[in-house]
Amino acid sequence: MRSSVVVLEMPFAELRYATTGCSLTLHHTEKPEHEDICEYRPYSCPCPGASCKWQGSLEAVMSHLMHAHKSITTLQGEDIVFLATDINLPGAVDWVMMQSCFGHHFMLVLEKQEKYEGHQQFFAIVLLIGTRKQAENFAYRLELNGNRRRLTWEATPRSIHDGVAAAIMNSDCLVFDTAIAHLFADNGNLGINVTISTCCQ
Amino acid sequence: MRSSVVVLEMPFAELRYATTGCSLTLHHTEKPEHEDICEYRPYSCPCPGASCKWQGSLEAVMSHLMHAHKSITTLQGEDIVFLATDINLPGAVDWVMMQSCFGHHFMLVLEKQEKYEGHQQFFAIVLLIGTRKQAENFAYRLELNGNRRRLTWEATPRSIHDGVAAAIMNSDCLVFDTAIAHLFADNGNLGINVTISTCCQ
Repeated sequence: MRSSVVVLEMPFAELRYATTGCSLTLHHTEKPEHEDICEYRPYSCPCPGASCKWQGSLEAVMSHLMHAHKSITTLQGEDIVFLATDINLPGAVDWVMMQSCFGHHFMLVLEKQEKYEGHQQFFAIVLLIGTRKQAENFAYRLELNGNRRRLTWEATPRSIHDGVAAAIMNSDCLVFDTAIAHLFADNGNLGINVTISTCCQ
Repeated sequence: MRSSVVVLEMPFAELRYATTGCSLTLHHTEKPEHEDICEYRPYSCPCPGASCKWQGSLEAVMSHLMHAHKSITTLQGEDIVFLATDINLPGAVDWVMMQSCFGHHFMLVLEKQEKYEGHQQFFAIVLLIGTRKQAENFAYRLELNGNRRRLTWEATPRSIHDGVAAAIMNSDCLVFDTAIAHLFADNGNLGINVTISTCCQ
């Protein structure tokens, strides 16, 4: 829930998330920018698309997903296959599943959208149901494989606090177009190998 | 050199490259399609862009490159770094270098172009100075690495007989946009790790 602290138009103002733990004091011009990344701001529902308006604490995210988004499949293990079916469906489409390993839950998202007009692209990414700091302890690998070709993307998972939109905007994820998708797809279904590991840094 | 066989408009016609070795007899409707892939057709200069009109035999390609395209660097070894400088140069740009290993010459091409209007992309690929059949004995890996991210593309080299245009059209190569290029670039220069291996198939 959003805290109800009144935002005062003073040079130095208390922050919107002060009641949930943030103790910074910033000049009011710095405030909007800080609030976008403040670790004390509430978590939004990590499901892609803006349809679910739920907000709450990190601890409540998993129970929200289990109750409000029952259709999301969970697979156990650090090395799984994320099977996206019917990738030829027209328009913007999201495929979502959960992967559970190392005592954490990860959300796998494949999003098909037209970032540039007339050029449909796929964006695949792994998010940690956790803070950005926790996410830095992990690495993930997404791999498309087949027909004597392999495309691999390795990176640090995003925290669901940061969400997928910025990563897609910056192409900071596995990006491929429909021609590549068809190179690797089998009968309209695309298997993405997902491996999560702990990070030695 | 193109052979000078006259193409007769008969149902079954001798093929354009009959004098250079092709002995197929095809219905005339199949001819243009076959000629595009006929292994006996002459080799064109493999340099990207249409500026060099040279054609000749496979055996003559390397000496053509060494005499007419002296500026192309060659590196020895199966594992090298292809450094593309000034990737922010505007417009369509090609970076080309040669890699020599396993007794063969490979051409590395990075091409920046606007396949979709307003969306600049990079396409990287490895070609063998050799036939398609020879190319099938090798595999290549292109890798962008840095900032806790890695993007890898592994495939069979293309023969210079097939060229890069079709591969780029079909995204059958390493494809990335300017945002990804900037994630991996250092001061406007992009290092691509290139590894060539022999194939066990």
